[in-house]
Formats: sequence, C-alpha cells, structure tokens
Amino acid sequence: MTSSYLAGPLLTDLYEMTMAAGYWRHNLNDKATFSVFVRNPDHKRNYFVAAGLAALLAELEAYRFRREDIRYLQQLKLFDTNFLDALRRLRFTGDIHALPEGTLFFPDEPVLEISAPLIEAQLIETLVLNTIGIATLIATKAARSVHAAAGRPLVDFALRRTHGSEAGDQVARSTYIAGFSSTSNVRAGQRFGIPVAGTMAHAFVTAFPSELDAFRAYAATFPQHTIFLIDTYDTLAGARNAATVALEMRARDQRALGVRLDSGDMIALSRGVRRILDEAGLTEMKLYASSSFDEFKITEIIQSGAPIDAFGVGTKVGVSADAPYLDIVYKLVQLGKRPIRKLSSNKVTLAGRKQIFRHDDPHGVFQEDILACREEKRAAGEPLLEPVMRNGQRHTPEASLVDIRKRFAKQFGCLDPRYKTIDSHIAYPVRLSARLKALQK
Amino acid sequence: MTSSYLAGPLLTDLYEMTMAAGYWRHNLNDKATFSVFVRNPDHKRNYFVAAGLAALLAELEAYRFRREDIRYLQQLKLFDTNFLDALRRLRFTGDIHALPEGTLFFPDEPVLEISAPLIEAQLIETLVLNTIGIATLIATKAARSVHAAAGRPLVDFALRRTHGSEAGDQVARSTYIAGFSSTSNVRAGQRFGIPVAGTMAHAFVTAFPSELDAFRAYAATFPQHTIFLIDTYDTLAGARNAATVALEMRARDQRALGVRLDSGDMIALSRGVRRILDEAGLTEMKLYASSSFDEFKITEIIQSGAPIDAFGVGTKVGVSADAPYLDIVYKLVQLGKRPIRKLSSNKVTLAGRKQIFRHDDPHGVFQEDILACREEKRAAGEPLLEPVMRNGQRHTPEASLVDIRKRFAKQFGCLDPRYKTIDSHIAYPVRLSARLKALQK
Repeated sequence: MTSSYLAGPLLTDLYEMTMAAGYWRHNLNDKATFSVFVRNPDHKRNYFVAAGLAALLAELEAYRFRREDIRYLQQLKLFDTNFLDALRRLRFTGDIHALPEGTLFFPDEPVLEISAPLIEAQLIETLVLNTIGIATLIATKAARSVHAAAGRPLVDFALRRTHGSEAGDQVARSTYIAGFSSTSNVRAGQRFGIPVAGTMAHAFVTAFPSELDAFRAYAATFPQHTIFLIDTYDTLAGARNAATVALEMRARDQRALGVRLDSGDMIALSRGVRRILDEAGLTEMKLYASSSFDEFKITEIIQSGAPIDAFGVGTKVGVSADAPYLDIVYKLVQLGKRPIRKLSSNKVTLAGRKQIFRHDDPHGVFQEDILACREEKRAAGEPLLEPVMRNGQRHTPEASLVDIRKRFAKQFGCLDPRYKTIDSHIAYPVRLSARLKALQK
Repeated sequence: MTSSYLAGPLLTDLYEMTMAAGYWRHNLNDKATFSVFVRNPDHKRNYFVAAGLAALLAELEAYRFRREDIRYLQQLKLFDTNFLDALRRLRFTGDIHALPEGTLFFPDEPVLEISAPLIEAQLIETLVLNTIGIATLIATKAARSVHAAAGRPLVDFALRRTHGSEAGDQVARSTYIAGFSSTSNVRAGQRFGIPVAGTMAHAFVTAFPSELDAFRAYAATFPQHTIFLIDTYDTLAGARNAATVALEMRARDQRALGVRLDSGDMIALSRGVRRILDEAGLTEMKLYASSSFDEFKITEIIQSGAPIDAFGVGTKVGVSADAPYLDIVYKLVQLGKRPIRKLSSNKVTLAGRKQIFRHDDPHGVFQEDILACREEKRAAGEPLLEPVMRNGQRHTPEASLVDIRKRFAKQFGCLDPRYKTIDSHIAYPVRLSARLKALQK
C-alpha cells in the first residue's frame, strides 16, 4: 500500500480531539484498552468476516500530524498551543490484538483490542471504526454471496456504485477475501494484486453500425478474452450474433469464452441462450450474468437450475444494500488497572481485555466460542486474537491477500451450514468464561 | 482540493479500457456524447440534489496515466504497445454541460452530458458515475433530513460508519450543501472549509472517576464549547450533573451550551431533561440529540413536539440507509452526427444531446421541466445545464461551497412542498419537447 492512500490523523471526529485535549489538560493518560466489536440488533447477519486490519496498521505506523494539519487545528481556535505541540510530536505507540483478516466472528466478540496511552487510543477511534467497518461489512456480504453461488465464480463489478473511490478499492479487496475470483476495478488490481476482469458494455455495441460489427471488432481485438454482451437490443438475437462470431473465431482457431446477460428474466433467457449456443455446437461457451445480483437473487437462480456459469456482482454487494452499515463500536474496557463498563440503555459493554477461544468438534466444525479474560489460560479452544502490533510497530509481516483468502475459505468450511442461511437468524453460541463473568460484577 | 485526493484514471472498470482498445484498433473515435442520469425504479425519491461536479472536474483536468499505471497495464498482457503509448499521451479534451452543484433535478433528467472523442469519453465512465453518485446520493438524503428538521440545525456525525474515508469527506460536503450546519469530520473541515463540531463521547465520561468529574474537566478545558453527554449511566441523573456543572460555570461567568442525549426514548427523556434544566434556571441550555436519526426519525420527533433543539445525524444519512445507492447511469446518446438509443428491457435511453428547461409560476414555484434538444431555442423556461468544461479545461471558476449551499436552499424553497414528502411517491412533471420526441423515432 502506498502512502498516497493513507487517510491520516485528521480523518477523525472533532470530539476525539477535544476529548484528547481534556485528558491532556487533566494529565489523564494511563494505558487504556478499547475493544472493537459489532452489535447485531436487527439480526440480519449470523456471522461476520474480519477485514481491514492491514489498512489500519499501515495508518497507525504512519500516524503523524503534518505541519498543515497543525496549522488547520490552530486556526480553529479551540486548542491551546501546548496541546498542539504535543500533537505534533505524537506517534501511535500502542499494542493491538486482533483477529487476523479473513477470520469468522460473531456479534459482541472483539475484532480487535487496542491498548495505548488514553490520548492516542482516543484519537484513533474514528479511523479504526471507519477502516475496519467498510472492509468487514463488505467481506461479510460477499461471503453470503459466495455461499449462495455454490461454487460458481463471482466477479466484483461494483465500482461505479460504491460510496466513492476508497470504498471501491476496499470492496474489491473484501470480496476477493471472501472468495470472489476477480474485480473489474483496475486500481484495486494495481494496488492489491487482485486479478482484473471485464469485456464490454452496451456503449461498445451501440458505437458500431450493428451488434454483429461490434462483436467482430471485439473478437479481433481480444481473441483470447472475448465475452459478448448480448442484451443491448434483444438477448436471443444477441445470442445468435454471438454464435455467428464465435463460429467465425473457431474457423481461425480462436475460442470465444462466453456471453453475458445483463437484463431481463435471467432464468428464461439463460435457458434460451444456452440452447442457441448448444445448437451451434458452442457447448464450451459460458453464460455470465450480471443484473442486480446479491445472495438473495443468486439463490433464486441456483434453485431454478438456470444454466448460468458465473456472476458479475455489483451494486447490491458493493453497498451491502440489505444492511448498508455495521453497528460497529469502540468501547473503553480498561483504564490503568480499572476495568470499565458502560451500562446505559441496555447497550452493555463487557469490561476487561479479552480473548476468544473457539472450540471445534472432532471433524473440525466450530461448536462454540468462549469469551474470556485476555490472560486466562484455558485447557481447550483455539485463541483467536493475535498480537499484531507492539509499541506502534507491526509485530508480524503483513499477510498476503491470497493467504487471507485461504484463511477465510478454511474457516468458512468449518462453519456449520445452518449458520450460513441468508433468511433467518440462528445465533452461533458465544459464552462468557466464569472469570470474565465475575469481572463484570 | 489537493491532488492527493485524486482517484486517477485507473479508478475504472477494466471493460472501459478493453472497449477503448477496441475503438482504438478500429479507428472509432468520433465525438461521442454520454448522458448521466438517475433512474427511479423503486420510487424512493421524489427529487435529487446534484453534487460531486467539482471533484469530477478536478479529476478530469488532471487526467493522466502515470508511468506506473502504464507499467501495470502492460503487465496484464491484454493491451498492445501502441495502445498503451496512446494512453500515455492521452488527456481529457472534452466538453461538459452540467447542472451546477446544488441544483434540484428529477428522474431521467441529465445531471451532466459529456462530449468527447469516444475513447476518452468511454474511459472516464466509471470515474464519473462513482464521483457524482456518492455525492448526489448523500445530498439527496440530507435534503430530506433538513426538510424534516423544520429549521433545527443538523450536524453530520457519520464519519465512523461511512464506506471508507473518501465517502466520509463526501458525506460531510454533501450534507453541508443540503443545509447541515457543520460536520464532526475534521479532515472534511480542513479540505472543504466546512465548520467542524463535536464535544465528548462516553469514553470521556467513563475515563474519569465520576460523571461529575468528567463534566467539570470538560468545562475547564473548553468553557466556551461545553455540551455535556448525559446518557453514559442514566440520562436524567446525567442532566442533573450537567445542571450542577453549568451552574458552577455560570458562577465563573461562563455558559454551558447544552446537553446531548444519545440513547433511549428521545421523546420522554428530552422532556425530563428540559424540565431539569429549566428548573435549575438553565433555560438557555440547548438539547442536542443523536441516536440513529434520519428524515423518518426526525419527523417523529418534530411531530411529537419533543423539546430537541438540534440533531447529530450519523450512520443512516451517511450511508443513505433506506436507499443506499442511486441507479445512476452513463449512456451513449450521440456518436458523430448519429443519435443513439438503447431499447433493451424497458430501460429506454433518450437519444440526442439535451437541455432541461424549468418553468415556474409567478411566485417562483417550479411548475414543470421540459426535456428538449440541446440546441433548441425556447421562448420560456430557464435552461439548467450549463457549460462547465471546454476542451478539458474548466470553463468557469469553481463555485464556493457556500454559494452551492445557497443555490440549493434557494431551489429547495421553489419546490412545491407536496414533492418533499418522505413517505409517498409524487412525480414532478417532466415532459419531452416535441422536437426531442421526434428525434426518438
């Protein structure tokens, strides 16, 4: 990741800075631990997929206020000069325990815990939530879609409708972690090494005198990467034109990869298109479909038996349309030696630094998680939170995106299929250890 | 806007580049016009607020492939060297007609039209949709919220839950255009000159031995900007603590600005809190509320008569939760002298370059819009699309954010209140001119 993508310390809510100034003035800068977790009040998700850690650690390693940042803050006339001097010198020196990216987790389990002098830990709150939030939101939505597709490849087409450019890149990365095969987003390809994919839009077809001309022009330019978009005028007529050009290619010893359907009744049209291609002897050509797909619509298609081989997945996954935000929070759980608990309005925060122990059965299937105190030694269960940053420096080298993707795939294979349902809430069991329970009193 | 925020030409779908390569190989590079408009298939919005143009024009003026971009594209082994050489030299040289930011518009009306050599116009499609999309999405959602608040100030608190950092800044900018008074996002304050606001979170309160200590510490640090967050433990007890410290401040000739409620039953609690403050003689202290507000919840509060003076508005507006994406599209409508029309699946695109003429009544209230051919001379109606870029250069200086905000406020005042309803679909009349109709045949 190049520094040009860093958000920087001013990507924060003003109140983080006013609180920091308050702590500073009152010499309140003990080591604090904040816990980041996701609530699930509307029960729309049975599991979450941790993502965004690499970007966060890069931000924190490079965390410093630039000269122009201090100048801007000065001009707000809110902060005194000594505090601004302290900010100018401030670096992030904390420790972080986190779920490695690609880890499955459940409501109220910490995704990460940050321990740092209170001022530092407070200043980074917004940055942490923003960075982990979008990445985890989309990895989770994408995991549901991958599961629905039952082995058929998915391609991320969301960039045009993501919430800005940074979201576009994070959507590409998070969908790839969850098992998408590629993205249309070229910048994400460059930035993260994700395979890129894409062929043509309707404009290409309409720019030529006829659909047949457009298909021939494309085949001549990219004989090894030809997928015909066939719905610009009439999908079945488009399929016949695609077959014509594919047969011309075959005569030149070239192979068209397939056709793409982008509108209309996907189930009926895919059957008609498959028949046209098969009757032309083009049984090897694949059907790609892209039309408001998400886990719900993909499930319909799969259940119908429609002969669609791969899905272009855009807007609805790229904004997680059915649940477009996570209820992700950052809560103070310990200050110095004092465990902290907030009780207001039924939104209880569990005090103390934590560890998650995951138990599986002899087949490796996840059975339950035990939420425990960080320093608890337990005979059984795999501890999930790992030290990833110490004194503001990455503790371990950054995992490759391919390894993160493998971790997710492996973990997802260990989740009992009943939790993978997309239309009902089934809570995976998460229990508190006796010691963590006692700490809450 | 500094260049560090530019997305750059690789923020594109791969197919824009493969199509461009196809055009290039077939010498198809006539001047093309693409029209950007918003469809409204689910009828969730009666109007839209144009935003995002300044960012788009900045991208296009600086549009160039860097050396490392070309190197990345080369290594994809998709494009031939001559095409990559052409990309290396490519600049955006087109013309743009656009609705000035802050303009109200309606479904199917062009937000902007881009006329440029086909290759350039195709390459920028994704960038255009991504940039205009997020900004317009949020300006529209924010306008609905401002209307619901009936004059009470709104503050953008969304940053922690926006889809990444760039979305956070665009949310701050778009909500400000629509009339929000300020943002919590410090980077957006620095970048766009938007007023910033914020005081304390629950962590601040829990970091001190008691709520009273926390309130006193805050008042000592920011005596001119004190708003107490009162729901950390118990909202009414918090109000009494706030009153205590506010009276202490008064004895020092200082004035606390107010209190903030962040959870619980806002209607009942606000009444109880107001009573506590009033009985303490603190009638000038304001009640701020922040708790999942959007146009729907604000409307409930206003209708209840709850004594809330200002709203902190976060997640639900920051992701436009009830409608988290725009169905915004970029369609080829003219190539050389040939008008282009796409007919598939009931998604009709109107051929030809266009102008919108808006008619108002003698009181200035908008009556109807006429969608016409660009070059039509009409006796009545105000033409809305303005030339904003010529030969790749901004045609006029960038409007200030404050002027954009004023433009929106003025236009919104001219919209008949019946279209401002948030819970039913009422279509503002948009008719085609006879000449535009004839062109479609």
